[in-house]
Amino acid sequence: MPDSNALPTVAVLGGTGKEGSGLALRWAHHGYDVIIGSRQQEKAESAAAELNALLGRDVVRGMANADAAQEASIVVLSVPYSAHRATLEGVLDEVQGKILVDVTVPIQPPDFMLAILPPGRTAAEEAQALVGSAVRVVSAFQNVSAVHLKDLGHGVDCDVLVSGDDAEAKEAVMALVEAAGMRGVDVGPLANAIVAESLTPVLLGINKRYKARGAGIRITGIDD
Amino acid sequence: MPDSNALPTVAVLGGTGKEGSGLALRWAHHGYDVIIGSRQQEKAESAAAELNALLGRDVVRGMANADAAQEASIVVLSVPYSAHRATLEGVLDEVQGKILVDVTVPIQPPDFMLAILPPGRTAAEEAQALVGSAVRVVSAFQNVSAVHLKDLGHGVDCDVLVSGDDAEAKEAVMALVEAAGMRGVDVGPLANAIVAESLTPVLLGINKRYKARGAGIRITGIDD
Repeated sequence: MPDSNALPTVAVLGGTGKEGSGLALRWAHHGYDVIIGSRQQEKAESAAAELNALLGRDVVRGMANADAAQEASIVVLSVPYSAHRATLEGVLDEVQGKILVDVTVPIQPPDFMLAILPPGRTAAEEAQALVGSAVRVVSAFQNVSAVHLKDLGHGVDCDVLVSGDDAEAKEAVMALVEAAGMRGVDVGPLANAIVAESLTPVLLGINKRYKARGAGIRITGIDD
Repeated sequence: MPDSNALPTVAVLGGTGKEGSGLALRWAHHGYDVIIGSRQQEKAESAAAELNALLGRDVVRGMANADAAQEASIVVLSVPYSAHRATLEGVLDEVQGKILVDVTVPIQPPDFMLAILPPGRTAAEEAQALVGSAVRVVSAFQNVSAVHLKDLGHGVDCDVLVSGDDAEAKEAVMALVEAAGMRGVDVGPLANAIVAESLTPVLLGINKRYKARGAGIRITGIDD
């Protein structure tokens, strides 16, 4: 029987990438039960082993995406936009009734610094349309630079814009934001994901233009 | 003959509103030659008089929109989205060859907290399509709260995202940003105006949700 006080199990699909594995590390460090998902189980296991080495504990597991999604109550999707639809189609059954956190940024290579709109307006809205209304989709984490995520002692100077249509699901994601050492800001309905999704290519352009590594954003005026 | 060291003449169409008149005040205070434009000359003159009273000098002029645009080399458009097209159509001839700074935010009343996309993707791109390629359109100032603009001693805790397809025009707008006491951040081509335009309804929602008056944004990671 699960411990009712235990933090939920989080699957990070695309968790072998920089962003996904950095978030996974921070969540595992904070006490979440974390599973790295990948198309290939072997790659997921090897990414999990890397995180366990950093943590000094054998707590993160690696699985194929569908198995990871099956085990979790919160499924985080952190894949390149080109893999967005296929990854979701591969876990359609496994995510039903759960919270899906979409981190995906619609980018059209080779121009990584241009804000583009996908056919469904945002990746987050495309995800919602694909998985159906029984899945609570929350959009978050797009603007967090991966640069410092794996350095647990390093603060991340970036707010996380959190949008979604279900208040309880947004609260669960706000807790994930704080567990990763950042501040979450509720920016309203899922349709407002357009801000965070279009901001990422803009931040990549700022990195290049201002010779920065990990530009981010802060919401001002809400501290007092 | 004009003084070649003088700052350019700036017309603020919609300069009777809070945002436009606040920016106009700051630019006039900094030494720009500022003209308030409005559909009705009388209203423009009365707004100019109000600013001159605040400045303690009789420097700001008020004119009908087309006359204001005719006199200026930089035309700032700060109108409700519902007046965007009509205002531009009224100054089509007068803006040719000039810099047009579009501050307009596409909002669909009554929901001021939902990011929406206009038919032309962004108001800025709609403006460019309308005025033609001889006008250098720059997008800026959408996210600046009007709350503190008229208090010249008050800092504005907000960066200004500046996008546009012409480098020289962007530089002229960067100078306007600094003159108004803020930091401008070059965010690339005009198509990236989608970030600033969609961010404003999100900030209005944040104001409501977090009981703030003038939420804004800062770009982090580019200070050092």
